[in-house]
Amino acid sequence: MLSRTLLARFRSESSITHRLAAAALIPAGSGLILGIGDDCAIYRPRGSSEDLLFTVDLFLEDVHFRRATHSARDIAHVALTRSLSDIAAMGGVPRFALIALCVPAWADDRWLRTFFDSAVRGLAAAGAALAGGDLSRGERLACDVTVCGGVPRGKAIRRDGARPGNRVYVSGALGGSALGLDDGYSKTSKAWKRHVRPEARLELGLLLRKLRATAAIDISDGLSLDLRRLCLASKVSAEIENPPVFPGAALEQALHGGEEYELLFTIPASVKVPASYRGLPLTCIGTICRGSSGEVRLNGAPLAPLGHDHFARPQN
Amino acid sequence: MLSRTLLARFRSESSITHRLAAAALIPAGSGLILGIGDDCAIYRPRGSSEDLLFTVDLFLEDVHFRRATHSARDIAHVALTRSLSDIAAMGGVPRFALIALCVPAWADDRWLRTFFDSAVRGLAAAGAALAGGDLSRGERLACDVTVCGGVPRGKAIRRDGARPGNRVYVSGALGGSALGLDDGYSKTSKAWKRHVRPEARLELGLLLRKLRATAAIDISDGLSLDLRRLCLASKVSAEIENPPVFPGAALEQALHGGEEYELLFTIPASVKVPASYRGLPLTCIGTICRGSSGEVRLNGAPLAPLGHDHFARPQN
Repeated sequence: MLSRTLLARFRSESSITHRLAAAALIPAGSGLILGIGDDCAIYRPRGSSEDLLFTVDLFLEDVHFRRATHSARDIAHVALTRSLSDIAAMGGVPRFALIALCVPAWADDRWLRTFFDSAVRGLAAAGAALAGGDLSRGERLACDVTVCGGVPRGKAIRRDGARPGNRVYVSGALGGSALGLDDGYSKTSKAWKRHVRPEARLELGLLLRKLRATAAIDISDGLSLDLRRLCLASKVSAEIENPPVFPGAALEQALHGGEEYELLFTIPASVKVPASYRGLPLTCIGTICRGSSGEVRLNGAPLAPLGHDHFARPQN
Repeated sequence: MLSRTLLARFRSESSITHRLAAAALIPAGSGLILGIGDDCAIYRPRGSSEDLLFTVDLFLEDVHFRRATHSARDIAHVALTRSLSDIAAMGGVPRFALIALCVPAWADDRWLRTFFDSAVRGLAAAGAALAGGDLSRGERLACDVTVCGGVPRGKAIRRDGARPGNRVYVSGALGGSALGLDDGYSKTSKAWKRHVRPEARLELGLLLRKLRATAAIDISDGLSLDLRRLCLASKVSAEIENPPVFPGAALEQALHGGEEYELLFTIPASVKVPASYRGLPLTCIGTICRGSSGEVRLNGAPLAPLGHDHFARPQN
């Protein structure tokens, strides 16, 4: 989803941010509770007991994946996970998805069948349905997934609720996705599997809602950058120690590697958080502090937000 | 939006259609009232007095437009209109949009500013807000617009409600967009303006809901093809005469030209339809009949569905 931080990085100057900040002014009576700047937008249907969450994510050939290394099944899986993970981060339940697909000539009938089979199965596993989409021809494969989720009225977990004294937690172990990408597409490795078959932490999102987590974000662009975003939104800073590292990954990969889709969350120190939930470890890695808004310190030293950034370092 | 007809045409064999028909099976309790196969999907939020409409449309460089002929403003306008028009066709009021944009190097800060300014203004004019989106780099510009609209519960105008004896109407005059595209991008012509500044007929959509139109569709892919789609969905046929033709356009352009975004609708013969609404002519062009499902006859002879089809005749 579109965040102010992303927009600010999109060009060296921040003119676009200012434009979009204006765009984010929400007209009265529109039903929008939250616009640009979080994992999802929030819409409150008239008279309904639930708020609806909306997120959209692009997944593009030669930008986010390569045809040579990602199967139709991988592409469907990751494209969906990117959006489902945004729903998870806000404590929502996925309801339906729209998939817009630009299909190049190399994607034959078999590819399309596998892609849609995988997408429909993935949505069904998450309790959601494919509600529609769009198809077009084009030179490179482009997949755009919009997901709608539901959450009880007023109960979405946002990025801006972290308070000084809250504990900072992360699910799972980090760096596996970056390791899988960096180690030469060794397709049998656990790290590669982690890269092409990440999981949206939907069940954990529901637990966080029950535990009254104060803020959450999914780690899509790296712990350092996503924690900075959470701190900026909440106008706080964070002091952390080393996070759990995926077996074989370097600490740098765990700190800055993207496409993890683990959840990073904050919660009052008084709340007892289990050491794991349904087999997924939950680790306290630090504390939210006052201090300079957005600043993250690792083991006492400033941590630069070097997370995954397509804009600063374009791939090709 | 994804329709069964589009899917059937996507490949010579219809395997994808069958896959997606399975995908369209809507899980009980999902809140989805209508999935793949109409202008929009319909979602019914729990306890709400309104149904929500959802549509997504791709707008791609070198497929739907060219950089040399379409300004940032044109691209924003047409990309939005494609989705807003789907909301109009179902009698809805636009609530918000998500815009996912893949931005090539040639689109500089100024281009982006103009694009987002135009998009936000266009949405505001339609009573809607920009709620979020996604940004990525890439080689060609790709714009994906998701729009959510609202409609009183159970009152969306669908494609499948046309009944024998209903009159067939069309708004405006047809063929201008095709004329604008075919006559060599003569940028000052009225036809070119029609091509790059089409209007979503949102006010007409509300009138059609009040008049209890039985079915409606927007003319995005040509009268011949879109009327066939409406007839197929309603399991009826249609007998029409020549539609109103845009000044200077050929009859063929009016019959088969796409990107008109006028509304094609059916309504009981007993309903008095005004000759125009807020300056927009409304013309009765025929009658819905029993007969072979999906068949359209023009002045007594079969009319082939030759409408705009990116798949049968790829552009480049």
